[in-house]
Amino acid sequence: MPRIIKVAAAQLGPVHRDSTRHDTLSRMIKLLQSASKLDSQLVLFPETALTTFFPRHLISDQQELDSYFEHADDLPGSPTTKPLFDEARKLGIDICVGYAERTAEGKGYNTSVYYSASQGKVIAKYRKIHLPGTVEPFENPDAINQLEKRYFEPGNLGFKAFRAPDLVLGAQKKGAGSPQPGQGDPIMGMMICNDRRWAEGWRCYGLQGVEIVLCGYNTAGWAPDLWGTRKPMTPQEAEDDSLFHHKLVMQGNSYMNSCFSVSAAKAGLEDGKYDLIGGSCITSPEGHVLAEAKTKDDEIVFAEIDLEDCRQGKEKTFDFDRHRRVDQYSPITLQTGIIEPELL
Amino acid sequence: MPRIIKVAAAQLGPVHRDSTRHDTLSRMIKLLQSASKLDSQLVLFPETALTTFFPRHLISDQQELDSYFEHADDLPGSPTTKPLFDEARKLGIDICVGYAERTAEGKGYNTSVYYSASQGKVIAKYRKIHLPGTVEPFENPDAINQLEKRYFEPGNLGFKAFRAPDLVLGAQKKGAGSPQPGQGDPIMGMMICNDRRWAEGWRCYGLQGVEIVLCGYNTAGWAPDLWGTRKPMTPQEAEDDSLFHHKLVMQGNSYMNSCFSVSAAKAGLEDGKYDLIGGSCITSPEGHVLAEAKTKDDEIVFAEIDLEDCRQGKEKTFDFDRHRRVDQYSPITLQTGIIEPELL
Repeated sequence: MPRIIKVAAAQLGPVHRDSTRHDTLSRMIKLLQSASKLDSQLVLFPETALTTFFPRHLISDQQELDSYFEHADDLPGSPTTKPLFDEARKLGIDICVGYAERTAEGKGYNTSVYYSASQGKVIAKYRKIHLPGTVEPFENPDAINQLEKRYFEPGNLGFKAFRAPDLVLGAQKKGAGSPQPGQGDPIMGMMICNDRRWAEGWRCYGLQGVEIVLCGYNTAGWAPDLWGTRKPMTPQEAEDDSLFHHKLVMQGNSYMNSCFSVSAAKAGLEDGKYDLIGGSCITSPEGHVLAEAKTKDDEIVFAEIDLEDCRQGKEKTFDFDRHRRVDQYSPITLQTGIIEPELL
Repeated sequence: MPRIIKVAAAQLGPVHRDSTRHDTLSRMIKLLQSASKLDSQLVLFPETALTTFFPRHLISDQQELDSYFEHADDLPGSPTTKPLFDEARKLGIDICVGYAERTAEGKGYNTSVYYSASQGKVIAKYRKIHLPGTVEPFENPDAINQLEKRYFEPGNLGFKAFRAPDLVLGAQKKGAGSPQPGQGDPIMGMMICNDRRWAEGWRCYGLQGVEIVLCGYNTAGWAPDLWGTRKPMTPQEAEDDSLFHHKLVMQGNSYMNSCFSVSAAKAGLEDGKYDLIGGSCITSPEGHVLAEAKTKDDEIVFAEIDLEDCRQGKEKTFDFDRHRRVDQYSPITLQTGIIEPELL
């Protein structure tokens, strides 16, 4: 029986350091309305959608830094973000939104929430686990900083999949007998930006039967070669390569976990200077790109998908129960870094 | 300092059920000589290179079945395979060869060995861990059987990387002080066919600093849709998709583990009937295809590679020590199959 969902990535063009939260939210609401005209049921917004990607800056002014964060219980309740969630509820569209989260204890996380329109509330939260970058800024003045390790703690909520209610017509409910694999409400997982390059997160979701992975991102198209290890390339070649890597990991990991993926970029010259790739896309469980962004600006990327298409992979090629050999995988959880063969 | 190696995949066209071992070995030796003319230092042959891919047949005649296996200590010593290894030594080319192995205790494995020309001996052995297929043949007479789980045990030697000596000019030796990451003899890992679709094996090698992954395969271009879960497609579409998946996993996993890969197919209409894809290729640590087969017959695919190119990924984007979060990965080793989120 088909299990059809209409999904969309809401790619955002640049959000600048001096953009107001009100203007950015207006753009997001406009995208939501565009997605609604396509009958979208689920819309994914990028990582740190509400603000510029501020970890590229060393920010010494605590007040400015605080201004990029939402407080733990603010979403969707805060006056600055509430209109987006109200609109989502009104249009009957689930949304997934990335933002910088400050907890009551003062800890920072790179977070995304999943808001169910039918439930009128946030039903799942994810905190980014694979934080790239450094704690200290680079000394080299040409460097573009990536200070996520400075501003955020690594996520502490795991890769926890969840079922999103009321999206699939006639989906069997909890309480009406356990849904079988390939039945019931769709199984979702969230990840953020750099997470998509790490097969471990995908597999943790795959091991929960994930059917759609949602991933917002801010990915640089060009950075100076501070490490001196890269082949010389032009800015355009670097951007093409960055886009290629983005699609490669979305396609490869979707295939290896037999799931759809939706990815949403913040794109273009943010803060008027820092180039971010576009390439928001929707991939199939067979690893094909079903739809992708044509611009580096505000844009809806849309596809109608059938979760039934996950079954071929989950039940045959990647039937985990029959084929995985967990007795052989211990290095994955026993060692963090590289131990060279002669030292083992 | 560049660490250059000239590597080749020796793709084989079909080897039939009635092909003689002598004829097949002659073809392999001819390929080795072609590779030598390109100054290849390392040549990879396919999975079960010496015979047809016999697990597609239900073989009740024990004598016939035995004829597809080599005995554990036979390679390279057996009269039927010795000429290949002698030629490799004579030409100064390391070779990796896939074959069906029967141990002294009577167990079967889908195995590959790495033979060092400078050492004049096999220095590493791998036994395929991710066996696809079934123990019992399909009842459907249209089915193409895949009886690897019937004829072979899952590999019991782990994903054990190793250093291959005397390939890189001036490589620092053991005993002359420990080689640092990115120095010394190249670090190799072997996998076989279906293994390449499982990110776990790649990561186990990645965690040993692997620089070149070698993977022989026999992959069907077309099989009937016995499970009723696949979208209708023509044989040509199915073959294109199979080739796409092959390259996707070689490229994606090479990128995510910052290593080169070499893959070698047995290709074409084997046993005059069963279609195998070609697509033998060499991929870079950035996930690009550097060279690939143009035919579905005996063919050398060649590239000169610089292991230095692994550094950008290993030291920056995929610096495991800094970015991996093993505390979040426990499902990967604690559960084999899918546990749906509401049951966790």
